[in-house]
Amino acid sequence: MSEKPWGGRFSEETSKFLEEFSESVSFDKVLAPYEIKASIEYAKALKKAGVLSENECEIIINGLKDLEKEISEGKFVFKTEYEDVHMNIERALFEKIGDVAYKLHTGRSRNEQVVTDLRLYLIDKVSKLKKGLKNLLLATIEKAEEYFGIIMPGFTHLQHAQPVLFSHWLMAYFFMFKNHFHRLEDYEKRLKECPLGSSAFAGCGFPIDRHELAKALGFEKPIANSVFAVSTRDFLLELLFVLSLIMLDLSRWCEEVVVWSSQEFSFVELPDSLCTGSSIMPQKKNPDPAELIRGKSSVAVGNLNRLMLLVKALPLSYNRDLQEDKPPVFEALKDTINSVKMMVLLVQGIKLKTENIEKWISAGYLLATEVADYLVLKGIPFRKAHHITGEIVLYAEKNRKRLEELTIEEFKSFAKEIEEDIYEWLKPEHAISRRELFGGTGFNSVKKQINTAKEFINGLEL
Amino acid sequence: MSEKPWGGRFSEETSKFLEEFSESVSFDKVLAPYEIKASIEYAKALKKAGVLSENECEIIINGLKDLEKEISEGKFVFKTEYEDVHMNIERALFEKIGDVAYKLHTGRSRNEQVVTDLRLYLIDKVSKLKKGLKNLLLATIEKAEEYFGIIMPGFTHLQHAQPVLFSHWLMAYFFMFKNHFHRLEDYEKRLKECPLGSSAFAGCGFPIDRHELAKALGFEKPIANSVFAVSTRDFLLELLFVLSLIMLDLSRWCEEVVVWSSQEFSFVELPDSLCTGSSIMPQKKNPDPAELIRGKSSVAVGNLNRLMLLVKALPLSYNRDLQEDKPPVFEALKDTINSVKMMVLLVQGIKLKTENIEKWISAGYLLATEVADYLVLKGIPFRKAHHITGEIVLYAEKNRKRLEELTIEEFKSFAKEIEEDIYEWLKPEHAISRRELFGGTGFNSVKKQINTAKEFINGLEL
Amino acid sequence: MSEKPWGGRFSEETSKFLEEFSESVSFDKVLAPYEIKASIEYAKALKKAGVLSENECEIIINGLKDLEKEISEGKFVFKTEYEDVHMNIERALFEKIGDVAYKLHTGRSRNEQVVTDLRLYLIDKVSKLKKGLKNLLLATIEKAEEYFGIIMPGFTHLQHAQPVLFSHWLMAYFFMFKNHFHRLEDYEKRLKECPLGSSAFAGCGFPIDRHELAKALGFEKPIANSVFAVSTRDFLLELLFVLSLIMLDLSRWCEEVVVWSSQEFSFVELPDSLCTGSSIMPQKKNPDPAELIRGKSSVAVGNLNRLMLLVKALPLSYNRDLQEDKPPVFEALKDTINSVKMMVLLVQGIKLKTENIEKWISAGYLLATEVADYLVLKGIPFRKAHHITGEIVLYAEKNRKRLEELTIEEFKSFAKEIEEDIYEWLKPEHAISRRELFGGTGFNSVKKQINTAKEFINGLEL
Amino acid sequence: MSEKPWGGRFSEETSKFLEEFSESVSFDKVLAPYEIKASIEYAKALKKAGVLSENECEIIINGLKDLEKEISEGKFVFKTEYEDVHMNIERALFEKIGDVAYKLHTGRSRNEQVVTDLRLYLIDKVSKLKKGLKNLLLATIEKAEEYFGIIMPGFTHLQHAQPVLFSHWLMAYFFMFKNHFHRLEDYEKRLKECPLGSSAFAGCGFPIDRHELAKALGFEKPIANSVFAVSTRDFLLELLFVLSLIMLDLSRWCEEVVVWSSQEFSFVELPDSLCTGSSIMPQKKNPDPAELIRGKSSVAVGNLNRLMLLVKALPLSYNRDLQEDKPPVFEALKDTINSVKMMVLLVQGIKLKTENIEKWISAGYLLATEVADYLVLKGIPFRKAHHITGEIVLYAEKNRKRLEELTIEEFKSFAKEIEEDIYEWLKPEHAISRRELFGGTGFNSVKKQINTAKEFINGLEL
Repeated sequence: MSEKPWGGRFSEETSKFLEEFSESVSFDKVLAPYEIKASIEYAKALKKAGVLSENECEIIINGLKDLEKEISEGKFVFKTEYEDVHMNIERALFEKIGDVAYKLHTGRSRNEQVVTDLRLYLIDKVSKLKKGLKNLLLATIEKAEEYFGIIMPGFTHLQHAQPVLFSHWLMAYFFMFKNHFHRLEDYEKRLKECPLGSSAFAGCGFPIDRHELAKALGFEKPIANSVFAVSTRDFLLELLFVLSLIMLDLSRWCEEVVVWSSQEFSFVELPDSLCTGSSIMPQKKNPDPAELIRGKSSVAVGNLNRLMLLVKALPLSYNRDLQEDKPPVFEALKDTINSVKMMVLLVQGIKLKTENIEKWISAGYLLATEVADYLVLKGIPFRKAHHITGEIVLYAEKNRKRLEELTIEEFKSFAKEIEEDIYEWLKPEHAISRRELFGGTGFNSVKKQINTAKEFINGLEL
Repeated sequence: MSEKPWGGRFSEETSKFLEEFSESVSFDKVLAPYEIKASIEYAKALKKAGVLSENECEIIINGLKDLEKEISEGKFVFKTEYEDVHMNIERALFEKIGDVAYKLHTGRSRNEQVVTDLRLYLIDKVSKLKKGLKNLLLATIEKAEEYFGIIMPGFTHLQHAQPVLFSHWLMAYFFMFKNHFHRLEDYEKRLKECPLGSSAFAGCGFPIDRHELAKALGFEKPIANSVFAVSTRDFLLELLFVLSLIMLDLSRWCEEVVVWSSQEFSFVELPDSLCTGSSIMPQKKNPDPAELIRGKSSVAVGNLNRLMLLVKALPLSYNRDLQEDKPPVFEALKDTINSVKMMVLLVQGIKLKTENIEKWISAGYLLATEVADYLVLKGIPFRKAHHITGEIVLYAEKNRKRLEELTIEEFKSFAKEIEEDIYEWLKPEHAISRRELFGGTGFNSVKKQINTAKEFINGLEL
Repeated sequence: MSEKPWGGRFSEETSKFLEEFSESVSFDKVLAPYEIKASIEYAKALKKAGVLSENECEIIINGLKDLEKEISEGKFVFKTEYEDVHMNIERALFEKIGDVAYKLHTGRSRNEQVVTDLRLYLIDKVSKLKKGLKNLLLATIEKAEEYFGIIMPGFTHLQHAQPVLFSHWLMAYFFMFKNHFHRLEDYEKRLKECPLGSSAFAGCGFPIDRHELAKALGFEKPIANSVFAVSTRDFLLELLFVLSLIMLDLSRWCEEVVVWSSQEFSFVELPDSLCTGSSIMPQKKNPDPAELIRGKSSVAVGNLNRLMLLVKALPLSYNRDLQEDKPPVFEALKDTINSVKMMVLLVQGIKLKTENIEKWISAGYLLATEVADYLVLKGIPFRKAHHITGEIVLYAEKNRKRLEELTIEEFKSFAKEIEEDIYEWLKPEHAISRRELFGGTGFNSVKKQINTAKEFINGLEL
Repeated sequence: MSEKPWGGRFSEETSKFLEEFSESVSFDKVLAPYEIKASIEYAKALKKAGVLSENECEIIINGLKDLEKEISEGKFVFKTEYEDVHMNIERALFEKIGDVAYKLHTGRSRNEQVVTDLRLYLIDKVSKLKKGLKNLLLATIEKAEEYFGIIMPGFTHLQHAQPVLFSHWLMAYFFMFKNHFHRLEDYEKRLKECPLGSSAFAGCGFPIDRHELAKALGFEKPIANSVFAVSTRDFLLELLFVLSLIMLDLSRWCEEVVVWSSQEFSFVELPDSLCTGSSIMPQKKNPDPAELIRGKSSVAVGNLNRLMLLVKALPLSYNRDLQEDKPPVFEALKDTINSVKMMVLLVQGIKLKTENIEKWISAGYLLATEVADYLVLKGIPFRKAHHITGEIVLYAEKNRKRLEELTIEEFKSFAKEIEEDIYEWLKPEHAISRRELFGGTGFNSVKKQINTAKEFINGLEL
């Protein structure tokens, strides 16, 4: 019983099964470096508050640094019977420096330690994720430049709709993920607030300087209310949400990669190095990374859901339920960082089969909207122009002709306003060049998007 | 067939059942005022682009304003056979002003209209929600001031932990919801970007000025890529997420209201006007509003989940699946705005039963941490001090004594360092006053929190 | 105050806003016919228990029947101030028959009424859903028969894999939905247990015969514990789960419809009556019903999620949170029943473009597995045979030849075991006919599947 | 390249990062024993189909048995570069027995192997879970017997409602979990269908006997359609759903344990061995297991959600996304099995503090419903009786009297029908004994529930 740091009040030993059931060190040990870091600064704060002597503080810090070395070298042995990362390190410090180790816990609670460690850990990981997003944004721009000028059929309802520059379509993803980048920046403002000094929830009983402590640990400021500091998990939920958005938008992108890789579409080809084969069908070359990323979108979303269920109706302040907050966050972070990295390779490796794409430009009735717009300029109200064009398409389809194969007489039989210049309008380049407005698919417009995007990337300090 | 605005190309009538199955006007009609507003500005933009004459533009705008009036007076009849709000209004405009009405749709697509309308609608609703949050923040501060000085048992694991000012506990909610307020502000930056001019996804075929259009509608800028503009629903997901956070934190607060209202706790009393009774048990007075809010947290969370499932793996650009995006957003918004309002009434109406709360302060062993801290100051390392105190508590419990009822000899039998001043430490006020550090439960510290909070509220322009 | 059925103990009026916030009659009024039905049987049970006289019972039943008529004729006016369906009907009965109406509530609580009504409502709806599923199963069989013999490229990873009978692929959906049918049957066992007689949760204070009551209402038996009866919502969760499975499997089917309808695939064509067009692009013919069903999968899944969050950590017995259980169930039920019906139309209306499908059979390397199997029969271990075939495919692809276009010498350069009969193996019919084992794509095997399926349908009593 | 089993067709090596990103052996290795088991039976089936000679079959089986031994002894080394459990074992078999190993894969695909292994694995785990549930049901009955006769205040809205036998309240959980037991039985019917012989999806190209194979592996029958067999993951979703129900109902039970353990309630006490303490507050004794179980409900629910998102809109047949199906299932299964086990310990260890519970019976107005029922028997319609009783309670509360402390004159001032026998009705035992109907809280009724429950348990063959 005396083994447990809280054993004094207990007259029976903890059930062995409960010990296993409740341990967290198997997953929270990744927080060890942050536990050390926060403990070193906490020791300094206690010294300044007069709780530790100069000498005691030095012994503690040296002990912690030794542990840090053992951990980074993989020599530290975490033990389940010490429950969690905090108690493992407290115990190891005691074994290394004796009784003085026990002074480090003065006025400090695991309730605040765990959220301090977690926030420090996340500050690092979010920074890594932002670098990954930057790489993805960059790869997107480069691919948009590589294939600048290629016209593809744009889709709505997965049906051919209007011609569009491939680069324009691709840049949609740039702006999607740029927004996610900004969401992470907004999130960081709230992440970088320090709970340390909140103790169990009432605030530390010794006069430590929380502003200095926060600063020393790289936070922007201390959290303004100690009950709030140990109770909230909104800083985990917000991260999981941004991860979910990132993964969901990757799932959309990957869906396009999968569909475009099909034999029927054959819009794109992936390098062999990014495909895998079948154990039974020798001819198979599958777009596995795209499928896996698409599948992994379930992780972030499901884990966000987990954490929302977890906090629902929990009274303040700390409840042991909250121990379940870490695995879903760790897992989703790892999967998202890796998925973004995988996507960079996919974007870089993908090749357009431009001859196939171009074939489709003239195959359907992609330019029907142009005909309607043409009629508008001839004075026909749009809805009527739309209706007339619909009839033209129906006629052309029945006669197995493409629009540009219709004679001028045939056109005129639907609307006498149509003249020879209609054939100019039936070139896809004409449709593109009519859309030079801001954000449109016009050649110059897309060029500008790309340039603005580059400036954004160049302006990033990461 | 000619009835459908897109009927020209079709040679069979739409299935009656499909018509019912696919209609959206039963729920998207709430967007009608925004559809009108956006249409008026779009007409002006078309005029500037040379597509409409001055006269045509005037006729259209007057027609739209007439419709606006009919809608606001509840006279407008929405019809299912016209599918959605856009087609209902287009049709009504035609019936009012004839063929010129059909010119309004030039270069415009429902794909962009629906997201423009939605964004305008949300800008209004988010503003309303922020006002609600402001009221809640205010009610929280006022209640914290009303009961300033009351000491209550703070909880961890729903067990008595340490004494804390009731106002301090309450202010935890202030800081929670203040963060949600900031999350809404961050969200608004992304919400206030205008999709109009994106057309179906390729950009408008006529040279309208998207910057001017965005400005005229109250947006901050146009969206920089037309495919992105019509494809993304991240602006709905982000809102649903913040609503989920708000509702989840309300569910925690309401859980406390419910528990504290129980006969056993009797910490608080709700006014009769905020309770309901039982149809069978005549004595019942139930905290229904708190339970309902707690229950309604499921709406925002579940609907966020709905929308995440909806967009998963959807290729760009528009797909009809997206029609399902509106009901979950409308419902969650309404429930959240109402729940916040209900919570304001609850916070205002709640009364502390201070005599019961005070009774509990001395009943348990809330001040055990103080004893440990006392021993620390006598030079005993914290972990040892903790252990000794645990044994004292165990002893006191067995002898059915409160800590302050132990004699000095009894104390000394556990640690000879304990002296008469220990009894001073066993007063709850002493524990409070030892925690004046930033964010702690000390009297002055909490006073400062309240003052900072007031300044924040006063600085808001809403 | 006296207006509220529970007003006796209250000295303040209910807040107007709480009244609006907490009303449920706007959605639970659909339960009215079941409320009447259960009330009639309850009156009889009270009479048998000696609480009501013969005469009182008759007056009550006649009153209830009058109300039933008003409701079915749409004449009954539900009022928000009476909170819910139960109080609306209690009140209306009082207005109709006076004080004796108040005797009906003897020993009865809304806690049991609402779950009794809900279960009766669901028994009806589940029966309707099962009929819908039967229609879908039937439509599937008929389509499988219509196109029996058509060989299509089977997919894994959306890549061409092996040839397969279209009917075999389609019958996969038959077995999926047959399982859902069985899940509903399993669910009905638990649904058909009657809560009535449980009162608020402790059981009725008057000796009514619950077995007889259950039977009279069409239940199989009474629920064996009154606390359980009013507390559990597992009977809603289980339904929402089966609805989710149905919708998710529909989403998979619809994804195939959408992909196969694309210009690139052109495997299928939908009739005009099941498509809609675009407001801007005159040529568009979109597979909207398939997209809408796919999108509506989010409703059942999200609403299941809602209800799971709702019940999490709710103590027994009734809590007001539970009022939020109905809207998600009603909505998901309606959407699922309609989606199944829509899918029946889709399956019936879809046409295979067999010439396109056949074209693809010979275009890729669908029969590579056959070559490997051929080599196996020549004594080469499968993994080696697989590797050799992989090299043959690579060679053929580089030389832009189909497998059957390779000369026997070319084949032999990879494996001398290959002989002239390899060309027989390179016919898709040969591949099909090699798979006559149970559940395989062989012609007879699929025929058997269809026959078994028909027998199942014919054996259903619905 | 030649290292990959599917490398023949590839001319570039797999990206190192893709190899890491896509490996599954780190988690699917738990399937190894089932992979061996299925492989042994598959070898026999191939022999019967004439593909393997007697001798080859024997060599393969012996090799597999050697591997099985290595795995069970923990000597087998799984390697990431071989992707998954299937390829690891295929490779190891080759290293052990040479080329003949490669014959085992004849006509077999990982698509079918993985679902066969998974189903076999789940058959074992579900059996284990059912044993756990049986233990929980048993512990519940025993506790209900231990405290038979104790009357507690029953709750609605966490407010005192009516007196109820503690055993009756507890037996609600018995019936909840009994239903979950039946849900698992229903699920097992669908789980025990064998996919083996489906090959990649078209069915095996060699005439193996699937019925015999299914039987040999312990399945009830083979799956009737090979495309369905490899595509569906409904057998995972259904399990996750039942796990979610189990965990959600445990969360409700644990919520009661937590609330009842609070100082304010003090209804129950947990043994020290099932509590843990605080690192800072020496007096704390927290109900951690109950909180952890409540928290772990998030795992099953969130993971169900994950899998639903995963399969949404996936076309048939196999897609690599499906690899993500295993971690959420494994995790939820482990947590649920452990949580049920932990709950058994909790139920067994919990002690009622009967003196506290009894104190509350007389403290509030628990018997108000009895007064109303009393008035009913005196001829007053229930709704009026309810109203009168409400006024009595209001009067008593104002005068700080308990109901039984009111004089007969005071009673009569509200209803002249009240006579001396009202005091008999104001005894809690009287209220209990009025509820002997089926499923009610009467002494005999609860006794009968317990007896029926015992019979159920005794009838189980597990």
